[in-house]
Amino acid sequence: MPRQITSFSNETVKRLRSLRDKKARREQALFLAEGLRIIAEARDSGVLPEVLAFSSATGLHPLAAELIAATDAAGGDVIETTPDILAKMSGKDNPQVLLGAYRQPANRLADLDRSAAPLWLAAEKLRDPGNIGTILRTGDAVGAGGLILIDDCADPYSVEAVRASMGAIFTQQVVQARWDEFLPWLRAGPGQLVGTSLKTDTDYLSARYEQPCFLLIGNEQAGLPPEYEAECDLLVKVPMAGRADSLNAAVAAAVIAFQVRASWRS
Amino acid sequence: MPRQITSFSNETVKRLRSLRDKKARREQALFLAEGLRIIAEARDSGVLPEVLAFSSATGLHPLAAELIAATDAAGGDVIETTPDILAKMSGKDNPQVLLGAYRQPANRLADLDRSAAPLWLAAEKLRDPGNIGTILRTGDAVGAGGLILIDDCADPYSVEAVRASMGAIFTQQVVQARWDEFLPWLRAGPGQLVGTSLKTDTDYLSARYEQPCFLLIGNEQAGLPPEYEAECDLLVKVPMAGRADSLNAAVAAAVIAFQVRASWRS
Repeated sequence: MPRQITSFSNETVKRLRSLRDKKARREQALFLAEGLRIIAEARDSGVLPEVLAFSSATGLHPLAAELIAATDAAGGDVIETTPDILAKMSGKDNPQVLLGAYRQPANRLADLDRSAAPLWLAAEKLRDPGNIGTILRTGDAVGAGGLILIDDCADPYSVEAVRASMGAIFTQQVVQARWDEFLPWLRAGPGQLVGTSLKTDTDYLSARYEQPCFLLIGNEQAGLPPEYEAECDLLVKVPMAGRADSLNAAVAAAVIAFQVRASWRS
Repeated sequence: MPRQITSFSNETVKRLRSLRDKKARREQALFLAEGLRIIAEARDSGVLPEVLAFSSATGLHPLAAELIAATDAAGGDVIETTPDILAKMSGKDNPQVLLGAYRQPANRLADLDRSAAPLWLAAEKLRDPGNIGTILRTGDAVGAGGLILIDDCADPYSVEAVRASMGAIFTQQVVQARWDEFLPWLRAGPGQLVGTSLKTDTDYLSARYEQPCFLLIGNEQAGLPPEYEAECDLLVKVPMAGRADSLNAAVAAAVIAFQVRASWRS
């Protein structure tokens, strides 16, 4: 049964609100997802929130009622509250009707089954959480198995990354690792490491991609460090027609990932 | 000669600061661009700011000094000020050393020379300024002539869009138009209108693209309205492998635009 919370100083309200900060997310190993669509996506992927807050002030969509009932039946903490308190927890003036707190999966490289997908995405020092979420969304669309975040990337469980992922945070496997963990793991099995580089003449359209392919995207400003490029089995570039010499990192990931997939279809 | 401004209440400080708001941007037909890189990009594209504010508190990069001299020589208003005042104008705690205010080009559809480029991008009701800037950046990279913003899109001259464009706001032609202006203009000359749709079976990889190609991207949530789809000469879809049924709008634009270009190279 949902419990009612009407106090801003309630401990659960404070706890959910704290999950907008990275430190609290790490300590509690939880993260927030907001909105009917993403919470339904999560459920469709077999994931229910540990805490689900909702407001019925403006009436409840049948799907929202269904998600509430499913979370309740699974033993989740279901909270009915006011739009104001939802706004406080989500940090938005116009909060959505549902706010869920989810357990962060404790994925490690050793848990990844690289044969489960022909393509895996990897990112190195990616700083923009929106880019990380967008790459997750692209990974889902292109049939990737997951995203390996190398070295100090932005938090994939931040509110901004989760939102940009449009639910892919629940369908893509996400692993965080250091480069000196990633490389030995990669080399312990089959896998072609493909990097993007301005320094190669190999056009991404004519390259030969092998399965499983690990597509590595570098930092937004600096690209891949030379010593990481040197470890790649293949470096490709996307030829530029204009003045600029680079694409947005999430765009570059998508353009190459879809070409990798296209090359396997033809 | 640069003039010194040390007062927060200076009229030019207030005017530049106001340009973070859409209304002020429209009234003054100016917009802000921040940072050495983008201001150098603009200069390389033949565009200098009307007002250029800088701080030499941490020393001046030789390129910054060059841009200041060029703006001064062209009769621009060059202002030397403090990091605090720069921070106030840019709205950032750690402002960049240069902040320029540029004239918004008054591009109209009638000004576009569609034969100047084989590909043009168009967006309908795109709400996210970051997406608009990213699409401009992609347009530059893929050799598009410009971006036509249809109906109520986010402001391409917002700080966020300009930043995401990474300078492409100065190299891509940007036109804002209503659909009922765009369509007659399009049909008055050669041009294939290509829309993205979930309702077609035509794979973007096997479609035949003709020059000049106008690639039309729909609203982030709703996609293209059916009556707009009905006017397209070609509808394509990007097949999805995962649970999701859509890509980020800027990602979709890039994946298809690069495929359009690739199809012409093979």
